[in-house]
Amino acid sequence: ISANDSQRVREIAGDLHESDVGDLIETLEAEDRPKLVELLGKDFDFAALTEVDETVRVQLLEELPPETVAEGVRELESDDAVYILEDLDEAERAKILEQIPAPERIALTRSLDYPEDSAGRRMQTEFVAAPEFWTVGHTIDYVADAEELPDTFYEIFVVDPTYKLVGSVPLDRLLRARRSKHLSEILEDDPRTIAATEDQEDAARMFERYNLVSLAVVDEAERLVGVLTVDDIVDVIEEEADEDLRALGGVTGDEEISDPVFYTARSRIPWLLVNLLTAILSASVIGLFEATIEQMVALAVLMPIVASMGGNAGTQAMTVAVRALATQDIGGRNARRLIRRETLVGLANGVVLALVIACAAGFWFQNAQLGVIIGCAMVTNLVFAGLFGILIPLTLERLKADPAVASGVFLTTVTDTVGFFSFLGLATWWFGIGK
Amino acid sequence: ISANDSQRVREIAGDLHESDVGDLIETLEAEDRPKLVELLGKDFDFAALTEVDETVRVQLLEELPPETVAEGVRELESDDAVYILEDLDEAERAKILEQIPAPERIALTRSLDYPEDSAGRRMQTEFVAAPEFWTVGHTIDYVADAEELPDTFYEIFVVDPTYKLVGSVPLDRLLRARRSKHLSEILEDDPRTIAATEDQEDAARMFERYNLVSLAVVDEAERLVGVLTVDDIVDVIEEEADEDLRALGGVTGDEEISDPVFYTARSRIPWLLVNLLTAILSASVIGLFEATIEQMVALAVLMPIVASMGGNAGTQAMTVAVRALATQDIGGRNARRLIRRETLVGLANGVVLALVIACAAGFWFQNAQLGVIIGCAMVTNLVFAGLFGILIPLTLERLKADPAVASGVFLTTVTDTVGFFSFLGLATWWFGIGK
Repeated sequence: ISANDSQRVREIAGDLHESDVGDLIETLEAEDRPKLVELLGKDFDFAALTEVDETVRVQLLEELPPETVAEGVRELESDDAVYILEDLDEAERAKILEQIPAPERIALTRSLDYPEDSAGRRMQTEFVAAPEFWTVGHTIDYVADAEELPDTFYEIFVVDPTYKLVGSVPLDRLLRARRSKHLSEILEDDPRTIAATEDQEDAARMFERYNLVSLAVVDEAERLVGVLTVDDIVDVIEEEADEDLRALGGVTGDEEISDPVFYTARSRIPWLLVNLLTAILSASVIGLFEATIEQMVALAVLMPIVASMGGNAGTQAMTVAVRALATQDIGGRNARRLIRRETLVGLANGVVLALVIACAAGFWFQNAQLGVIIGCAMVTNLVFAGLFGILIPLTLERLKADPAVASGVFLTTVTDTVGFFSFLGLATWWFGIGK
Repeated sequence: ISANDSQRVREIAGDLHESDVGDLIETLEAEDRPKLVELLGKDFDFAALTEVDETVRVQLLEELPPETVAEGVRELESDDAVYILEDLDEAERAKILEQIPAPERIALTRSLDYPEDSAGRRMQTEFVAAPEFWTVGHTIDYVADAEELPDTFYEIFVVDPTYKLVGSVPLDRLLRARRSKHLSEILEDDPRTIAATEDQEDAARMFERYNLVSLAVVDEAERLVGVLTVDDIVDVIEEEADEDLRALGGVTGDEEISDPVFYTARSRIPWLLVNLLTAILSASVIGLFEATIEQMVALAVLMPIVASMGGNAGTQAMTVAVRALATQDIGGRNARRLIRRETLVGLANGVVLALVIACAAGFWFQNAQLGVIIGCAMVTNLVFAGLFGILIPLTLERLKADPAVASGVFLTTVTDTVGFFSFLGLATWWFGIGK
């Protein structure tokens, strides 16, 4: 369809929702994407670009003429415009900003000046503000007639003459109040606000906690500068959970499924190299017991079982801890309780697993003593797994590191090392071999 | 404070937001919780109970007299009421429902009749509906005077005489329209709806995709029965991401950090037993090569490295796949591309790791041939890891199983088995030992 020019494309794609247009763009081949945008011309809603992967977006924007992009971006709400511009490189972004008239350009630049992933980056600078002394009737009439209003809004912010936030009036409350009342009588005082420089994740926490639909963003002087709306926050929450999950899976950075092979491989290799190092470390523990293994090969067969079960149990404890930290469910007081709980859970499950593996190993190698030894090693490793499964994320959090990213490596190093050492060490001592 | 009765408690806790009251309840000892509720009396907002862990909620509700609960629940929006009642056992719930007057009871029962985690369970049955022929002015006046309105609402639903949804009018649009216009002229036609029996996750996808603030819920006859609001959906999204993350970490079920040791241990052990079984399975692969290991103990030292690197690389591929499946980013067409990509990424990173480990192992054991063999085994295992890291979740999804839950076990079984087999097998063949 998009090979030959036509207005068929407009007919098909013109009426779609921006998310659907975004999907359409992603399924097209890279070289067809700019064509689609040009064919759609004025009918192309640049908001669709907020719905595609970063790689696709950056590539497409670089191929379009800056004038087209500038015009498209002007049509957008400021938060979408910033979202589209923020990933471009400096030069490209400057070229597009040049084409935008001064007042809008200044607003965009100010948002772009806030740190990445801050509330100021995500906020929309269009909002409805009114002074305290206005009546409900006056406000309703103002809203009905005003020209420059955001596309959607859920509350009216009430500000003092210096633009400091005094309160907010949700639209439903405005509608239900008498026209003669003053805004000061119906406003929700002490409204929740967030500083523009704060992290978007903190904003997300506030939305979740207080079931907000929009949240006022203020600058250092407590003046109202923008508003965060829940639809942007939904994306933040999703992203954040995604980050934790990927980090636990050893996928750092912002890999997307449309990334090419080379890029993906390169972004994943550092993590693998770190793991290789720790794997060699734990293997060197086995190296200490070469003589023991030579005399009893069954140990080599069984040792990965002890190590891997420790890894599994530790990961369970760690997963719960990482999520609880991310959602700020762990405080000083229950931290100690959690450490005790995880250690005891490790002990309990260690005993169960020890019984099973002791019987299995005993029968397999016709050696009851070997069964007892693997059982003891299993209990030891699971207690360590539980303890470190919670201690490692807690410590990383205290050191201001992201517990989701690094916990896994440390944990498997501990469980592998303890697993190999306890099992091979016990066997060496008990059977008096390996000297 | 809550040991001796007083109205100090009211002063302190009376003005807090429901989330903060929820936190307060969680930090109290179990026996003090019902006391707090009783001390607060009418000042206790049962909405606080939607903010605490399930275990805490159920325990507290069972200790309170049914009349108190019934009265508290009546004050709530229907969705919060359902949320509080749904986890109670049948008998307890019936006792509370008995105390609620018929009309409200029937509405609650109807919501509770929808399947767990469905849109019908999460919806609020209070909403504002108006017929098409009403004018904007009439609607505004109606809203201003009506008594029984939901606490908060963001749009007016326009319905036909049979209560079928015709469209919706967001409040900001209502405010901006002329009073003389008919709703039929300003409504958003073809509004998005969801069937009450559909899963809440599908609803969450719609909110994310179309940036909604509220979504109409309809019954089988397409009649409007309720509304989902974004604050509930934020919780659903968070829960859903949480579930995936826990599932990948081997924590199934709905474990919460306030659960006691025994309960936690019991809920985690099944997963560990499954893993034990697969660990024994992969260990038995090592068992096939006992004679080889006896002749060359270095193999026992190195084999866990090959296996664990496969596990790490496979987990990376799997994590990306599981999340992409959860957010419905994988379709038929890019599935094949992804499979190719993951295999090639496995190959590329396999080669890099192979070079490193070949040198390391060669020097360590002063045996260049051993280095070549571990390198070859590493490449083989990483290709399998990439391939199965994506194939396993895709297959599970096609079999309608949850890819997040089971992928991990299958994957490590594959990478351990392939890792041990390729390394030990190659060594046996190359050095001609183990016969």
